[in-house]
Amino acid sequence: MCSAPLPMDYDNPACRSILQRIRFTHPFVYGLTNYVAATLSANVLLAVGAAPAIGAAPGWASSFGAHAGAMWVNAAGLINCTAQDMIVAVTAANAHHVPWVLDPVAMGAGASEYDTIIHDLAMRGPAVIRGNASEVMALAGGAATARGVETTASITQALPLAAKLAQARGVIVAISGPEDHILAPDGQHIIIPGGHPMLTAVTGMGCALGGLVAAALAVTPSGNDRLLAVAAAHALYARAAEMAAPVAQGTASFATGFVDALSRLQNVTGEAASG
Amino acid sequence: MCSAPLPMDYDNPACRSILQRIRFTHPFVYGLTNYVAATLSANVLLAVGAAPAIGAAPGWASSFGAHAGAMWVNAAGLINCTAQDMIVAVTAANAHHVPWVLDPVAMGAGASEYDTIIHDLAMRGPAVIRGNASEVMALAGGAATARGVETTASITQALPLAAKLAQARGVIVAISGPEDHILAPDGQHIIIPGGHPMLTAVTGMGCALGGLVAAALAVTPSGNDRLLAVAAAHALYARAAEMAAPVAQGTASFATGFVDALSRLQNVTGEAASG
Amino acid sequence: MCSAPLPMDYDNPACRSILQRIRFTHPFVYGLTNYVAATLSANVLLAVGAAPAIGAAPGWASSFGAHAGAMWVNAAGLINCTAQDMIVAVTAANAHHVPWVLDPVAMGAGASEYDTIIHDLAMRGPAVIRGNASEVMALAGGAATARGVETTASITQALPLAAKLAQARGVIVAISGPEDHILAPDGQHIIIPGGHPMLTAVTGMGCALGGLVAAALAVTPSGNDRLLAVAAAHALYARAAEMAAPVAQGTASFATGFVDALSRLQNVTGEAASG
Repeated sequence: MCSAPLPMDYDNPACRSILQRIRFTHPFVYGLTNYVAATLSANVLLAVGAAPAIGAAPGWASSFGAHAGAMWVNAAGLINCTAQDMIVAVTAANAHHVPWVLDPVAMGAGASEYDTIIHDLAMRGPAVIRGNASEVMALAGGAATARGVETTASITQALPLAAKLAQARGVIVAISGPEDHILAPDGQHIIIPGGHPMLTAVTGMGCALGGLVAAALAVTPSGNDRLLAVAAAHALYARAAEMAAPVAQGTASFATGFVDALSRLQNVTGEAASG
Repeated sequence: MCSAPLPMDYDNPACRSILQRIRFTHPFVYGLTNYVAATLSANVLLAVGAAPAIGAAPGWASSFGAHAGAMWVNAAGLINCTAQDMIVAVTAANAHHVPWVLDPVAMGAGASEYDTIIHDLAMRGPAVIRGNASEVMALAGGAATARGVETTASITQALPLAAKLAQARGVIVAISGPEDHILAPDGQHIIIPGGHPMLTAVTGMGCALGGLVAAALAVTPSGNDRLLAVAAAHALYARAAEMAAPVAQGTASFATGFVDALSRLQNVTGEAASG
Repeated sequence: MCSAPLPMDYDNPACRSILQRIRFTHPFVYGLTNYVAATLSANVLLAVGAAPAIGAAPGWASSFGAHAGAMWVNAAGLINCTAQDMIVAVTAANAHHVPWVLDPVAMGAGASEYDTIIHDLAMRGPAVIRGNASEVMALAGGAATARGVETTASITQALPLAAKLAQARGVIVAISGPEDHILAPDGQHIIIPGGHPMLTAVTGMGCALGGLVAAALAVTPSGNDRLLAVAAAHALYARAAEMAAPVAQGTASFATGFVDALSRLQNVTGEAASG
């Protein structure tokens, strides 16, 4: 049922092909996310050539949810929009076959009213669920182990529950951590090695990855290719972090270098390192 | 009726004079804008010496709208305040002769409820309307051509409608693009060449320009000089972008360099390039 | 009653001990703050090793207010949450002996409805009140001297009222300015020299300091040590600013260098300057 995990990184042609399609087609990607992460999320998407719009102004959830190439819903967006806004957006997306990503930020941290909203959203057919180990475990029905937006669980703890969640709901589940794991409903399992611990020292990095996953979905028409698309977004992230870390003077210049690296990454081998 | 367009850049004494007055008088500039662009907008204003306040806390719209030197209303601010907040703010501004800028972000992108709010605001007497080609066309009654917050129209398409809008409403209309165009009700037309395409790869750059235009209005008491003030804000932007682009390593360091450049620009010739 | 002010800087062992405890225990710090300053605030906290969560998603105020190590309430957070959210959070914090910081941003700037909410919050038992001279004066019942979020008063003007406020309410009062002053209810008075004027040219720097003060409280179990904890947070800030200023190219690279410096500061003498 579970095949051996397959490693993937940015040098994989599938990953480069996803980036190329984002750069060439500028997909419109709509997000409901929180104001702490919104600016970084938009800049990450612009850096790879996508066209993001964020937030629930009057009429946006139904209109942009229907007409975007893909959408991401970050649960902590509930600090600046209502659960109803999110339901309107995912209903519109579903009606128009727009794939969407659910990020269960801070699930399992003790706010039961909040967790209930995320459980409800998770039943509405996301294409991808992306979070850290604690969040995915909480959504999969495991113990609540989060502390605010931080995980206190390990990926090893989360993997069995995540695989069950993927199978039971027919959803791709992505867990971010020291290495990222992407699990498909049929048991396929991709590992993204690399990245850098400094990604956890910059606010919104996980949240912005949800937006990048949505951009990858937006350029991947076939449902069968979505697993690779999700893995490609994670591989892009890992490579950009590896490019930024050696020259960073601290966490803020790491963030700058990370977005710079995303904006420099090209679809052709060898261009990545050029300024 | 329409005179030939007049080019203007940062080396124009009128532009330097505007910057000098902002740096010396620290005008209080109040903004209702969206949380994606709010931080950059405040930092752009602080970089030139203005004193920004952003958002609709209880009592702020009526009080700050009345007492600011100028105000900007960014329609995407509706992701974090109500249409009523905006109406209260512009009503207070109008009652106290505080000039204000309307930025019709994402107008014409398909959300009719949202577009209706912007149409209503546009009837309430902004001193300036500033947007990209699609947004200005949509507001002027042309075809809806936006895709989220991105334009899909060219400035050439937008100019005739923008000129009509300026004349019909007695408002200055500024269109951002590969070169910026500023149109006055009496047919005057200023072009700002230069700038840099990377401005479109950083979220909130257009939104923050609305704030800078407001700062320029705040130090321009005579209505007759407003056209130059609006042009000066655009010229400052273009010059800062030209200073930042050659040393940028990507889109994020471009944004850093851009705000750095704004903070270094001085009113005296020759100081611009010094660190 | 008032002892002579005692200077303190980052080289003070008490300051380094606070930083060490934050880095080793990763305190969960919860904030209700405004979207202009939220991202910087989270990044400042992450840079020193704390675990921030920000905003009032459903259930967060009561749950995170109760379970955080400390909390900060920034009055300008009323641009994105309700007064009731703040009251719920401080009530939960008080019930669980979670110390919290009140930042009366823009108090005294003319919005009486807003000022009334802050007065009410100030009566609910904050451990620390932190603001600029105008804000502290307004909260202490002095003249309203703010202009938006900017102070127009000097620290000299604010000190007598601040000392009275500290004594009357049993609260530590911290005033930010060219040098920072920390006043205890019993008359103790600490001065933090240094820092850099560029701190006032980056939006959210004062707001983020409120979060750092909360992080220092979170690792300071004894109420008796809170004065040192508050001073330590200010001293960390001043040192990071002094490290960032000489290499900044302008206000934005100053902000980047400032957070970088915070992330590099160590608890052991001599490591501060190493990259």
